[in-house]
Amino acid sequence: VAQAGTVTIIGVGLIGGSIGLALRARGLADRIVGVGRNPEGLEQARRSGAIDVGTTDLAAGVAGAEVAVVCTPVTRIAGDAIAAAAAGPAGLLVTDAGSTKRGIVEAVEADPRGRAAFVGAHPIAGSERKGVAHAQAGLFEGRACVLTPTARTAPERLRRARAFWAGLGCRISELGPARHDEALAFTSHLPHAVAAALAAAVPADLLPLAAGAYRDGTRVAGSDADLWTGIFLGNRLPLIEALGEFQQQISQFKAALLGADADAIRSWWTAARDRRARFDDPSTT
Amino acid sequence: VAQAGTVTIIGVGLIGGSIGLALRARGLADRIVGVGRNPEGLEQARRSGAIDVGTTDLAAGVAGAEVAVVCTPVTRIAGDAIAAAAAGPAGLLVTDAGSTKRGIVEAVEADPRGRAAFVGAHPIAGSERKGVAHAQAGLFEGRACVLTPTARTAPERLRRARAFWAGLGCRISELGPARHDEALAFTSHLPHAVAAALAAAVPADLLPLAAGAYRDGTRVAGSDADLWTGIFLGNRLPLIEALGEFQQQISQFKAALLGADADAIRSWWTAARDRRARFDDPSTT
Repeated sequence: VAQAGTVTIIGVGLIGGSIGLALRARGLADRIVGVGRNPEGLEQARRSGAIDVGTTDLAAGVAGAEVAVVCTPVTRIAGDAIAAAAAGPAGLLVTDAGSTKRGIVEAVEADPRGRAAFVGAHPIAGSERKGVAHAQAGLFEGRACVLTPTARTAPERLRRARAFWAGLGCRISELGPARHDEALAFTSHLPHAVAAALAAAVPADLLPLAAGAYRDGTRVAGSDADLWTGIFLGNRLPLIEALGEFQQQISQFKAALLGADADAIRSWWTAARDRRARFDDPSTT
Repeated sequence: VAQAGTVTIIGVGLIGGSIGLALRARGLADRIVGVGRNPEGLEQARRSGAIDVGTTDLAAGVAGAEVAVVCTPVTRIAGDAIAAAAAGPAGLLVTDAGSTKRGIVEAVEADPRGRAAFVGAHPIAGSERKGVAHAQAGLFEGRACVLTPTARTAPERLRRARAFWAGLGCRISELGPARHDEALAFTSHLPHAVAAALAAAVPADLLPLAAGAYRDGTRVAGSDADLWTGIFLGNRLPLIEALGEFQQQISQFKAALLGADADAIRSWWTAARDRRARFDDPSTT
């Protein structure tokens, strides 16, 4: 992986900050610029080592950059990516770290300079915590990063995007933007919705009797409300489909329970247990 | 906590084995006897230090015991508790570690010797792993243990049961057996069912794109099928009610998503996030 000159990180929170720390730890950039809306947040990012310099002026921040990586909430990514492409040098690669892709890629590709510069990306790593204070240099190591090129993506930018994300330690795969969103509806957005539903379903006065199953099953319900409202709305129809599949699983279990059908409960549980085992060890069939 | 003479553990798996290790680490018993159906499992428990001696003969195992603690699967607990009360000395305290209580307590109290000896208990600690190989001396430290005495429970046995479970490090509380089952339907049995439904709802070919939310949300789906079939059937009606509450949460979210209602999604998420925060810190209101 070749070293880049200047990398500009737009949105220096948990994800953007972790990218900065990883670039520094791996010696992958000569200079790391942070763009944010809040000068105090940028100063915190600078002190933590995630960026060398911060600015609230996006156009100034991308001047002279080789790569701009947009790590703002999903509702702002397309606008920030288009602004970076418009203000940056001719050779700028613009990529992002958004959890949804179809809407973002469509919006950016509707803009000619955006289309020429952009490669959508989703590094599948995160935390229920937010902010640069929780950033980690190793956040992306060994994690999947899905690139979502289209027929309109410049091949040269795609090559550079692969190298950029691989340089941070990611395992690279590629999917169309719509296919990405259908997959992530099941693998990430559904688990977040289920965690929140479970968290809320247990009456507050019973929480002293809850233990590990509730704790782990609801961990991600501690995530930021605005962030997740944006992700859910950015992937509505695939998530509605995933919720339907999940509702069928719950209904199937409830029917077996209503019928006091031990065999049906046991085989339902065993199928779920096998699926979980396959997640832990993909060589399981 | 006074030291007991002989404590007999009926069913030496994860829970029974952890009780044995805790009794030994805390010097709470002169002698720890294990009763099981499988001589090899008993020998493994003996080598691990969880028991001093093992036997497949329940009557021989409880002879001379001061306390018998029944740690078999919930479908077998009542029978084992009655057998222990019948075969043991007149002063024997019989307690258990079952995850459901109403059916067990009713069955044991239908037997005069069982009723005189028994105090139902549920130490709320466990793991998705099974077997004495995963037993830990510290499993019960600081964990809740719900005792489920009834109007028919002997006060002297209740005092001894409190001392026994507190001696292992548990925080003791008391609930009627039916109330215990209603509470645990929400705090434990529902989270297990939801974990399994989530595990099964994600198509196998998408698992390489799943990450922390799926991993933590489905952890307990790795638990034993027979064990959980017994628990679910032992607490059918309260669990059906808890599932109904959970289904309403999912339906509420799905309706907000169908209506693309950002405010409704945000306030739904925030209520769930607040409930989860209260679990982590009960001083939160």
